[in-house]
Amino acid sequence: MGVSLALLAGLMLTAPAAWGAENLQQVMKRRGLTQEHILAAAKTYTPTGGRDEFIAFASGGQSGHVIVYGIPSMRILKYVAVFTPEPWQGYGFDDESKAILAQGRINGKDITFGDVHHPALSETNGDYDGKFLFVNDKSNPRLAVIDLHDFETKQIVVNPVFQNEHGGAFVSENTEWVIESAQLAAPLGGEYAPLEQFNEKYRGGVTYWKFNREKGRIEPKKSFSIELPPYSQDLSDFGKLASSGWSFTNSFCTERYVGGIERGVPPFEAGCSAKDTDYLHVINWRKAAKVAAAGKVKKINGHPVIMLDTVIKEGLVYLIPEPKSPHGIDVSPDGQYMVISGKLDSHVFVYSWKKIQAAINAGNFASHDPYGLPIIDMKQVLHTQVNLGLGPLHSQFDSKKGIAYTSLYVDSMAARWDYLNGKLIDRIPIHYNIGHLMTMHGDTVKPRGKYLVALNKLAIDRFNPVGPLHPQNHQLIDISDDSKLSLLYDMPLPLGEPHYTVAIEAKLLKPAVRYKTGTDSRTNTISPHKTRAGEERIEKNGNRVEVFGTLIRSHITPEIIEVDEGDEVFIHLTNLERAEDQTHGFSIGKYNVNGSWEPGKTATVSFKADIPGVFPYYCTEFCSALHLEMQGYLLVKPKGYKAKVGEMMPKEQYTQADYDKQVKTNIETQGVVDGVVGFITSHNYKDFPEVVALVEDATQQLGYAEDPKGKGEAEAAKGNWHAATLWAGQWWQYQVKAADIGLRAKTYLEQHGAKKVE
Amino acid sequence: MGVSLALLAGLMLTAPAAWGAENLQQVMKRRGLTQEHILAAAKTYTPTGGRDEFIAFASGGQSGHVIVYGIPSMRILKYVAVFTPEPWQGYGFDDESKAILAQGRINGKDITFGDVHHPALSETNGDYDGKFLFVNDKSNPRLAVIDLHDFETKQIVVNPVFQNEHGGAFVSENTEWVIESAQLAAPLGGEYAPLEQFNEKYRGGVTYWKFNREKGRIEPKKSFSIELPPYSQDLSDFGKLASSGWSFTNSFCTERYVGGIERGVPPFEAGCSAKDTDYLHVINWRKAAKVAAAGKVKKINGHPVIMLDTVIKEGLVYLIPEPKSPHGIDVSPDGQYMVISGKLDSHVFVYSWKKIQAAINAGNFASHDPYGLPIIDMKQVLHTQVNLGLGPLHSQFDSKKGIAYTSLYVDSMAARWDYLNGKLIDRIPIHYNIGHLMTMHGDTVKPRGKYLVALNKLAIDRFNPVGPLHPQNHQLIDISDDSKLSLLYDMPLPLGEPHYTVAIEAKLLKPAVRYKTGTDSRTNTISPHKTRAGEERIEKNGNRVEVFGTLIRSHITPEIIEVDEGDEVFIHLTNLERAEDQTHGFSIGKYNVNGSWEPGKTATVSFKADIPGVFPYYCTEFCSALHLEMQGYLLVKPKGYKAKVGEMMPKEQYTQADYDKQVKTNIETQGVVDGVVGFITSHNYKDFPEVVALVEDATQQLGYAEDPKGKGEAEAAKGNWHAATLWAGQWWQYQVKAADIGLRAKTYLEQHGAKKVE
Repeated sequence: MGVSLALLAGLMLTAPAAWGAENLQQVMKRRGLTQEHILAAAKTYTPTGGRDEFIAFASGGQSGHVIVYGIPSMRILKYVAVFTPEPWQGYGFDDESKAILAQGRINGKDITFGDVHHPALSETNGDYDGKFLFVNDKSNPRLAVIDLHDFETKQIVVNPVFQNEHGGAFVSENTEWVIESAQLAAPLGGEYAPLEQFNEKYRGGVTYWKFNREKGRIEPKKSFSIELPPYSQDLSDFGKLASSGWSFTNSFCTERYVGGIERGVPPFEAGCSAKDTDYLHVINWRKAAKVAAAGKVKKINGHPVIMLDTVIKEGLVYLIPEPKSPHGIDVSPDGQYMVISGKLDSHVFVYSWKKIQAAINAGNFASHDPYGLPIIDMKQVLHTQVNLGLGPLHSQFDSKKGIAYTSLYVDSMAARWDYLNGKLIDRIPIHYNIGHLMTMHGDTVKPRGKYLVALNKLAIDRFNPVGPLHPQNHQLIDISDDSKLSLLYDMPLPLGEPHYTVAIEAKLLKPAVRYKTGTDSRTNTISPHKTRAGEERIEKNGNRVEVFGTLIRSHITPEIIEVDEGDEVFIHLTNLERAEDQTHGFSIGKYNVNGSWEPGKTATVSFKADIPGVFPYYCTEFCSALHLEMQGYLLVKPKGYKAKVGEMMPKEQYTQADYDKQVKTNIETQGVVDGVVGFITSHNYKDFPEVVALVEDATQQLGYAEDPKGKGEAEAAKGNWHAATLWAGQWWQYQVKAADIGLRAKTYLEQHGAKKVE
Repeated sequence: MGVSLALLAGLMLTAPAAWGAENLQQVMKRRGLTQEHILAAAKTYTPTGGRDEFIAFASGGQSGHVIVYGIPSMRILKYVAVFTPEPWQGYGFDDESKAILAQGRINGKDITFGDVHHPALSETNGDYDGKFLFVNDKSNPRLAVIDLHDFETKQIVVNPVFQNEHGGAFVSENTEWVIESAQLAAPLGGEYAPLEQFNEKYRGGVTYWKFNREKGRIEPKKSFSIELPPYSQDLSDFGKLASSGWSFTNSFCTERYVGGIERGVPPFEAGCSAKDTDYLHVINWRKAAKVAAAGKVKKINGHPVIMLDTVIKEGLVYLIPEPKSPHGIDVSPDGQYMVISGKLDSHVFVYSWKKIQAAINAGNFASHDPYGLPIIDMKQVLHTQVNLGLGPLHSQFDSKKGIAYTSLYVDSMAARWDYLNGKLIDRIPIHYNIGHLMTMHGDTVKPRGKYLVALNKLAIDRFNPVGPLHPQNHQLIDISDDSKLSLLYDMPLPLGEPHYTVAIEAKLLKPAVRYKTGTDSRTNTISPHKTRAGEERIEKNGNRVEVFGTLIRSHITPEIIEVDEGDEVFIHLTNLERAEDQTHGFSIGKYNVNGSWEPGKTATVSFKADIPGVFPYYCTEFCSALHLEMQGYLLVKPKGYKAKVGEMMPKEQYTQADYDKQVKTNIETQGVVDGVVGFITSHNYKDFPEVVALVEDATQQLGYAEDPKGKGEAEAAKGNWHAATLWAGQWWQYQVKAADIGLRAKTYLEQHGAKKVE
């Protein structure tokens, strides 16, 4: 644990110039940092180009997004738009993504937000496989599928029977099924019934969505639901290994209380927490799937529902009393233990799967609920109860045997404890009021340990103030030391309120940096509107105008689009780039037209040209030195416009001198390019894949230069100096782009210790 | 500069247990960190509760937002919704913020995004005052006002004469005016004209928006524009001190070239960069304001425009050749120098205001442009030209005399140089391709030095991959050391593409944490819908239903809202909380109803109840232990529904035993509360403002407990044990909230070294 004095001296005293004007101790003094802070900084600081060990996916709450960040750097890498339109990604702006959002329409209404609660990563054999992410919308009961190949939302399904759902998404060990459980009870299918008929007509339930891994899509027609009593079914978890084939769903307000403080009766919060226990639902989903497949269902809105009488007859669901007003149900990595906390009970309850199975197999039930569901005696199936503190909510698991972590909302602490031996080990204060917590792969068969993230519900004074609406706060905690939990980092969440987060080893993710040219990314197919360079065209049929265009550094083809007032306009654009991060945008002012085209993507923006006038369009991503000039004009000719116009002619006219000057510049620029190429090829650049990609890109740009160079020379041969000068200018633009990329490659080689080759 | 060996030994070897299982050197080895990395980490790492020194406001590009982050921690604190609806903030969801977005409608169309480019902080005497932020929308020419009292968008104005604008926002020394300059030329006012009439009918210009500081709003009726030739007027800056009363606007494509690669002519990028120089517009705005006030204008769309003939006659605008295809124009802190880079010229040009003034005063013009504007000879007014490198774009200033920083896009570098003596000092590589850069207060009369942020346009390989669409990358650079520029931090931007950023000393910002109860935050007035506790009600007039409700931990009043199919429903909610960060949300599933209510705010959500059924609503912010129970039901009765129903009656009925048990729990809980109160009051808690606020909140919660306690006792006296038990439960809920807050205060005191008082 110690460190030799000599080593330290060497560490801190050599090359003082490289440390800038201040040394470490001076910085610590100026910034009020302690030794612990420096160690925490060293454990989290990630230098330029460094990689995070884990990638976290947090639900974005009411923002409707998913938030992606790195651990341990705690830097947010991306907001993925899911339920809410988001223009930077073009989501809800291009026709392809509008079609995804249209899948989420309800009762004919656009729903322009979601309340995203629980992300779930796809699993293979109970461990994350890095292929897909599922998230739910609590407010409008929906589920979305995100493909981790490109981090885009591919599908939204609307729950056909619930009005609300908090308890999703959770996936089975091989991602065959995704759970979504109703929260606030309502008549199944959405019809009206007065609250006076709450007990009789209001119902809860759980939906099992079938996931097709090859298609990467949920199959609604192969999915089914189970009708349950109106108990506010809540968070769920799938069994694993020992408990494979079963799933577990918490509930609260099994009192079936209906509040109404305005009517003189106590509010929901009082009546929904009156009893000492609520019910854990233990569900035999493998059997339920067979029952559904056998058609023993009622179709509600066309969706198969196993009704309560069948549930009871087939023995699909068992109830076990659980601590009052629970939040999380978490199955241990070996599938043998179910850990449940009730936020109004200071004990966490650990149930034994062996004991539950024994009770079920023996038909050993203490009683039945008012709807006829069998209730198992809690004491018979309890493994242990541990007093952790006030307001326990959620648990996650460590890589170390028997170790779990539980959030304590009221105490504002995270607890480390032993669920096998029923012992509290340690607690660490968090700031403030922790909801979920999360360990690395912490809900899989193989937790990775190392880090814990506390998802705090209040930030209060943790950060510089930014007005009445505060950021959220995720705190990173080092759990690698058995003797101590250490706080490493406070990360503000600047948009949205994450409820749950999952973190996967970064190396398990293999996202692409480009699409096959012409890809419709929302369907993962080649778009019928794919357009190659040179095939750009405008087709007009009646009042329907279709533009087949391309995007490349630094021009949009076509650069002029003329339509008539009233035309329906469809602009299909293909990004021809192959280089990483070479995204182009496209926007038409005042027509609310906007989109994002990553390398290879084809997507369409469409609108009715109902306002005449001149509407500039341009690339919205700063893509190159000539980005500002990546522009064009949409002209919408007014109905009946007949004026005669002259020729298009700029006032500037170029001469032979202009041409000669431009050619001289180009020859000089080629010298710069050649110099850079010489540097690169004289080094072992092929050992650096990033540089190889840059060289390919630069070579492509130089290749593009041939065409305008030839055109310029041809015009010059005819004495057309004006046109010749312009084409020579375009030749130069490609040279500048090649030089830009070449210089980037050269700098990379210099900074990464490339060696000269002989 | 060195550090004593003894001190270092002490620093690293004491208290090894506190450092966890690994010491600093072991962490460095495991994570591949160098000494420079540790120093950079120490300069940026901000421990829990720490404060940043500067707050940066970055434009969000196509996301339509503004991004707020701290320096040096580089943690993003907030996305402020400006032009794009954003549900976490309720922006574009409640009626009050819908009214702001409605101000931004164009030609009767909702514009649901913006392309935010240039934020500008309000200034007093040429330095930031922390009161307001202005940002522009390039795509749909608009300007927005954000109030830094609460970080909310208060106003959007649509440019009445332009079709597009890149060159905004820039403010005058005392924020009397905000500039917005047209970019892509079009007929003023939006009418149609064919491109063949480009030279004759297309125009550029600059708009001067009048800002009323007391009202915190732009006054369109007191604003005016200046007509200019179709030169793609671009970024601007106001003069200051020596050059007060003047403003400066760059331009590009003064060639007035119209591309059309699909028509066989070279694209815009070739023709717009053919000449060696473009024009700097030097504008006498103080005189122009007088000319406009005197009515020497043409009204276009009701907006006063000083037309070109008046501009020339009154001598309002002068042109000076500037390096080709320039981006930024930046006025030195003393107002004496104008720094301009042309991205296709490796030199940065420094103009002398004294020389410009002399030329103007002497009427010493080299020539006139085709529209009659006088052109000043560039060589006569140049102070110096400095060869900095390839692709210079923008400049910012240091606190040190004569020192400026310029971004080099093609070289991917930031340059430090001396604009007084015309010398390049140093360059630092950035990754990759820097657009704007920014120093602290770097465009004011009093730059603060210390840090430079490079706004890189490409991230490429800097971060873990997250699909084809990459985050942006802002790199923090230490400029405090005269001998060296040091890279400190790479910050990914997870949503949107910032173009420019401004940073202000954090101490100059004084945002509020709560509103006066009943505040309509978008108008800064008390809402007519403000509702006090106990005044909640539902008013129905014909088919118009108005709900006056309240939000408080943990219930929504009313908890049941019954309406008839077809009713127009207006739900006015007031958040009664006074505690910091105690925001509540409200959402109705399937009706796309959602909002955010910070403490004290009143806002309205409205919708037509056109779908019958049962629609749960709930609080979307995890606000308290009983947050999940903060719920209610909207019942939309179908047309013609007549069924008879019984009484509302839960199946659970509580007995005297239940009541006695609850009261016993409450007495025990009161013991916990008393213990916490005892701890707090026995310490010097009044020295901690955060704790005083918590104590006030806890006391308030305990105060709320009195009412249900009394009701429970009254019902018990009458033998109504069911009702008595429920009210006693509600009494307990308030105790739990008080205990929660009290524990938070106790932990705070323990962690901040509070002392026992005698």
